[in-house]
Parts: sequence; structure tokens; C-alpha cells
Amino acid sequence: MNLIESARAGLITPEMEQVAVQEGVTPEFVRQGVADGTIVILRNARRQNVTPVGVGKGLRTKVSASVGLYGETGGIDVEVAKIKAAVEAGTDAIMDLSVSGDIEAMLAETLAVSPKPVGTLPLYQAMAEAGRKYGSSVNMRDEDLFDVIERHAAAGVDFLALHCGTTMNIVERARNEGRIDPLVSYGGSHLIGWMLANRRENPLYEHFDRVLAIARKYDVTISFADGMRPGCLADSLDGPQVEELVVLGELVRRAREAGVQVMVKGPGHVPLQQLKATVVLEKSLCHGAPYFVFGPLVTDIAIGYDHINAAIGGALSAWAGAEFLCYVTAAEHVGIPDIDQVREGVIAARIAAHAADLANGLTCAREWDRELSRARKELDWKRQIALAIDPERAGRLREERSDAAAAGCAMCGKYCAMEIVSRYLGTARHTC
Amino acid sequence: MNLIESARAGLITPEMEQVAVQEGVTPEFVRQGVADGTIVILRNARRQNVTPVGVGKGLRTKVSASVGLYGETGGIDVEVAKIKAAVEAGTDAIMDLSVSGDIEAMLAETLAVSPKPVGTLPLYQAMAEAGRKYGSSVNMRDEDLFDVIERHAAAGVDFLALHCGTTMNIVERARNEGRIDPLVSYGGSHLIGWMLANRRENPLYEHFDRVLAIARKYDVTISFADGMRPGCLADSLDGPQVEELVVLGELVRRAREAGVQVMVKGPGHVPLQQLKATVVLEKSLCHGAPYFVFGPLVTDIAIGYDHINAAIGGALSAWAGAEFLCYVTAAEHVGIPDIDQVREGVIAARIAAHAADLANGLTCAREWDRELSRARKELDWKRQIALAIDPERAGRLREERSDAAAAGCAMCGKYCAMEIVSRYLGTARHTC
Repeated sequence: MNLIESARAGLITPEMEQVAVQEGVTPEFVRQGVADGTIVILRNARRQNVTPVGVGKGLRTKVSASVGLYGETGGIDVEVAKIKAAVEAGTDAIMDLSVSGDIEAMLAETLAVSPKPVGTLPLYQAMAEAGRKYGSSVNMRDEDLFDVIERHAAAGVDFLALHCGTTMNIVERARNEGRIDPLVSYGGSHLIGWMLANRRENPLYEHFDRVLAIARKYDVTISFADGMRPGCLADSLDGPQVEELVVLGELVRRAREAGVQVMVKGPGHVPLQQLKATVVLEKSLCHGAPYFVFGPLVTDIAIGYDHINAAIGGALSAWAGAEFLCYVTAAEHVGIPDIDQVREGVIAARIAAHAADLANGLTCAREWDRELSRARKELDWKRQIALAIDPERAGRLREERSDAAAAGCAMCGKYCAMEIVSRYLGTARHTC
Repeated sequence: MNLIESARAGLITPEMEQVAVQEGVTPEFVRQGVADGTIVILRNARRQNVTPVGVGKGLRTKVSASVGLYGETGGIDVEVAKIKAAVEAGTDAIMDLSVSGDIEAMLAETLAVSPKPVGTLPLYQAMAEAGRKYGSSVNMRDEDLFDVIERHAAAGVDFLALHCGTTMNIVERARNEGRIDPLVSYGGSHLIGWMLANRRENPLYEHFDRVLAIARKYDVTISFADGMRPGCLADSLDGPQVEELVVLGELVRRAREAGVQVMVKGPGHVPLQQLKATVVLEKSLCHGAPYFVFGPLVTDIAIGYDHINAAIGGALSAWAGAEFLCYVTAAEHVGIPDIDQVREGVIAARIAAHAADLANGLTCAREWDRELSRARKELDWKRQIALAIDPERAGRLREERSDAAAAGCAMCGKYCAMEIVSRYLGTARHTC
């Protein structure tokens, strides 16, 4: 039996136990969530070195960091260093989105190095191989695509990003919608290019049963990718986006019937006032499947600061019910993030996730903040730094702080006003 | 007649005209807001080099950056460089919060250098002078405090931060409330220390008419400081904070009766789910006076990343109706920000402000995002960079981007899927 079947049969598997311990919930809570499809457990049974991660309703909000070979930049070593940095910074998952170079070797490294669940977007490799084999990716055959999907599953990938809902109908709608930018999804663009060149329906939709058969065989989670992700605020919650979500809702039901775990990827660029509606809509159309949002970004103009932009949208989305945040780095819209941008992207997403966990009343989140606040009141720097979301940076900032700043107070002289207050209100004596 | 009197008499002053042009609203809209007290115009008539800035309902959300001499750090030159960086980064106001060194010389420089309205917290200088004159700040006389307030107003300060609502009653409540951290306001702590040492009511409350007389004489805006600002999420929206806000509501009414412009400072540390209530409460208790929030921070644990933390809280607060965001830098809770942290703090606050302006339907905000999105679709990098919130950083990131990344596509070969899509959907050809 796979995870869903076990859950439905009332059996608590070791993965459910592990997730329950990590989250501070009961194994029964996790089992029920998996049975209902409101929780997915990311882990491929073939990987020995991965700790299962639960994503879904009632669990801590998770974050994912994307790396991968792209163009002539970097190389496997550079990307592996980014994976290590992202894991150190506390990411809950890694997506290897390599589109060029030795994609297979990169994936092998990613799976070897990451102790966290790994996701891929198999279309990239299938198209790259078709480019080599046939002279162009548009000559890719269905078999080539399903072959790569199965190879990724067999290699141990924990979740597969697949544009199953990007149908020809929806491409037509995008063409006529009057979007500012009809298409910004990179994988979606390549897939649609293939569909148009071959005058064919999306094979991931047409042969969705084959997708399900592979996912079921390896007990891999499907992450529905959104080809119609809006590329700017003005295009948010429009016809193509919502129609694709309607189709994905249909596919969520079919996946569950087939005993396959599934989550849904979401935008993207969403104005503040549409974030809650966007999440509510996904929950309704997709029957409570976990929502894996990309940011979201709440303005289009924050080039160079999109990690901050995404933290705003991520916090609100997760508060509204999105359970998984794909990080956005400061390099978004411009280039490939370097290792510092990867690290900062993970932390920014974690701040958003944690702020939402606090708002959603998660006890472990609340206790963390209280512990740090007590340490702050006691001026216990060692403990504050240990409890900071990034102890390394907190410690460094504290060290850089000039001792001179702490030494002098020009005001108090003999009778320190701060000391009087501290005595009266029972606070620790702050430097003044 | 001062600004409020003119507005009430139906007269549109040059300041109202200027604000109307900046904001793209009618002068009558600004006049009505000033008359009602829902808009304040920051500008001291004695300053020639300041452009008036409107803060309030229906206007663009504004941000303020704080600088100032503190302990033995930096010096006037360093702080002046921060002011210039903050102005370049697009701050709408500067607060000079110097507590030590040559406070008067620093303020003169701030007023000379900043083309934006300047705010101060006169208590710091009054206490520093009392320390020198009497051996301790707790020996400060009422006269000393009112003297510094008047000197700041006469020097041209545009808004004065004053803890007028921090009464002895409220100190007692804070003592008995069971807060994790009873007191975190730096100025508030010194003031309360003075009150306890002298067994005296807060002179800014007791002699509020003197405060009003000075503010009226120089037509300076009062910014009520919040001595009971919570220092952690757990202490948010508790008795002392709300009681102080009740008192400030009473003082807002008295200020308006006296023809004095007034705004109210707010927290601080506020969990996501309390942000809207916090703003709604201020609007109700303080009769629609502009709300000048400090961040707010939505978690206590983001040491080293509090600018990101504050961007989340700032966006939500401004969407809920707060009109003025005091920046928080990455150095918050640890030390004094350096110039890069000042710059990044301003941009983070501006992203939050802009996201809220978009959500609140401001036309100029929406058009900005649309323009950039169109440039992005057209792959017009020059225009994207010019329209970015920080063109300097956007341009630098674009330059650093390896050309190699743009050159290679491993997939398409002879027939480019991206080109097929571009032709069909009418998008610009993206590099792939």
C-alpha cells in the first residue's frame, strides 16, 4: 500500500509518525490529512537520505528553494553550494530546475546532497534531450516525456512539477484575454510551443492516466505547475489563470481516486487585496489540496528586492491557507541568484511562513517568539542569537556593533532614569 | 491663519496646492482632509528648503527614516551621509533622533541637508542638557523641556514627537499588566524614569496646553509618541497600549480644537491577525488622525532581517489605513544601522507602502506597475530599470548578470518553442 492507501485504511506509517513528531501534532492528525488529501508527505521511498516533510493544513508552513543549471552560468559545484546554503538557511525542500548542461548528473548530485525532499520539472530534461536527439525540442515525442518522468521518479525525486492543466482551450483563452503578458511560465512556454508546433493537446493532460500510473508506482507527489501563472498584478485572477485552476481541480480529484498525492502550484504576481481570494479559490476548486505559491509578489516594481516583495505576499497567503512557499530571490526578473541571494531568499520566505504560523495560532511558533522576547527583556544576547531565525547573521551583527555605542549615555549621569524605571517595572537594565 | 484654520475657512493654501499636485488629487480634497484632521501637512513655515509632504487618508502612503547621534558611534558626518542616502532612496521624511553628542549642531545639519520634512524627539536633548547642567537628567525642570520643544520648533522642525499620553496611570497599568517586557520605548523609558524619580505626572500631559501653544505658534505638527509601544507580539494590544491610545484620542481632540495638526505613532510588534484591529482602533479612538506605525514587526525572531519583517507588517497596516510607515532597518534590536542598512530600510518600507497603495486602488500606483509590466513584456531593460523602485540596484544586478546566461538554450535548436509561442500569443521573444 502507498501512503494514501495506508492512510485511508487507518494505518499510521513511519512517515506519518515522523511528520507528527516534527510538527507536534498527533500521528492520527497526519493520517487523516493524508487520507483527505489536505496533507501531502514529500518523500520518495527509494531515497534513503531524506527526512519526510509534511505539507498541508494544520502543519507548519514550509518553504522551498529552487536551484539548477541554466545557460552557461555556474555549474554543478556552484549549484550544489547553493543547495547546501539553502539547507543551512532552513529550507524545507529543494527544487532542481536545471534546463541545460548535464541535467542528469546535476539531479544525481541534488539527490545525494539534499537531506530535504527534492522536486524537479521533468519537461526541461525531456525537451533538452529531444533537442539533442532530434535537432529541436518541438520534435519531442510523448514517450520521451513520460520516459524522463519515470526516470526522475525512479531516481528518487520526491515531487514532480507537471503542467497537467495547461490545455489548448486555456492557451486560446490566454490568446484572447488581453493580458499585459500572456505567458511567463518558462516550462509552460516550452510546453505550449510544443503543443502549437505539433497541433496537439498537452500530453500531460491527454495522457494524465500515464502520469498517475508513474506517480502511483513510485509513490511520488505530483505538484501541478501553473502554465497560466500571471506575470504581473494586472493579469492576476483572470480567465486563463482561473480556468487552469478549474481544470486542475478536476485532476486533483482524479489523482486522489488513483491514490496519488497531489498539491497545486500558484502565483506569482497577486495584489494584496486578491491574495485571500486566490487562496480561497484554490482551496475550493482543488478540494483542499495543499497550495504551493510562488512568492507571491505584491508589486511588479521591486526589481532587486523581490525577496522582500515575496515575503509580504507569502505571509498573507500562508495566513489565508497556502501551506508551501516557493522562495523568490533578489535576483528574480533579472538573473540567476548567487549563493547569498539564495540564503537570503530562504530566510525571507521563512519569516513570511513563520509570521503566518503565528497568525494561525501554531503553538510552537508562538513559543519561539516568546522565548526570544524573554531573552531580549533579560538582555541575554547569547540566547537571543541562538533563537534568531538566522543565528549566524544575528551573531555577526551583534559583534560588528561598536562597543562604544553601548558604553556612553549622555543623559543620565549620577541618577540613571533607565535604572529607576527598571527597578520600578521589573525590567532588566537596558543600556541607555 | 495657520494651516488648519485656513482649511476650515475654506482657503486653499500654497502647501495644499503643492500636496495636491504631488498626489494627483484636487486641492479641495487636501483642504477638506486638513480641515477634518485626516490629513496633516508636514512643513514648518520657517524652513525654506523643505517641500511640504501630506500624510493622511486618500494620499500615497509615506515612509520616514530615522538617523541621529547615539553613544560614541559615527558622528555628524556619518549621520548626514545616512540622511542623503535615505533621501536618495526615496524617504518622505527624516527623523533626527540624536540622544548624545552635539545634538543641536546635528539638528542644524539635518535641517540644512534634508529637502524632506524633519521630525525630532525634543525630550532627548532636554534630558541630555539637564544631565550636563544638573548632573542628572532626572533633575530636568519642566521649563527645560518646553524650552527645547520651542527651540526645535523655532529652528524649523516640521514635526515633533512627544509622549503626551504616557500618564502615571498608564505606568501603573504597565507595572501590573504582566507584560513580557513592560517598556521598550527609549524616550518613554527616560520620561517615566523622570516621572518616578520626581513623583510627578508627565509634564507633556499635565501641561499639554503649553505644548499646544508652541505647536500653534510655529504651526508645527505634533506626532504623539507611544511610550507603551509593545516590545513583543505577546504584549500587543494589551491594557497599557490601548489605554495610552484612549488618552491620545482625548489629546487629538484638544489639539484640533487648538488648531494644531496632529498624528499618532503606533507599534511596534503586532501579529498579523491583530494588524487590522490595531489600525481600526486608532482610527476610531483618535478620530481619524493619521497613523504613523513603526514597522510593524510581525514576528520577534527576525534579528538581522527586521526590514523584511517590517515590510510585511507595514504593507498590511497601510492597506488597513495606516498612512505613514517609520522604517525599521536590518540593524534593529542589535545596533545602529550603517548607510546600506538605511538605504535598504527605506526601500523595504517603500515596497510595503506601495503594495498597500496598490491594494487601496491608488491610480498612480497602479499605473506605475502597469508601465513596468509592459516594459518587462517587451524585454525593454532600459525602461524596466528606470521604472524599478531602486533603479541603481536594478541596473547593477542586470549588469552583473552573466551574458552567458542569456546566450545558450539547450533545448530548442532549430525550432524554438519560445519563438513559436511568442508568435502565437503576441509576446516579445524571451530568451530561453
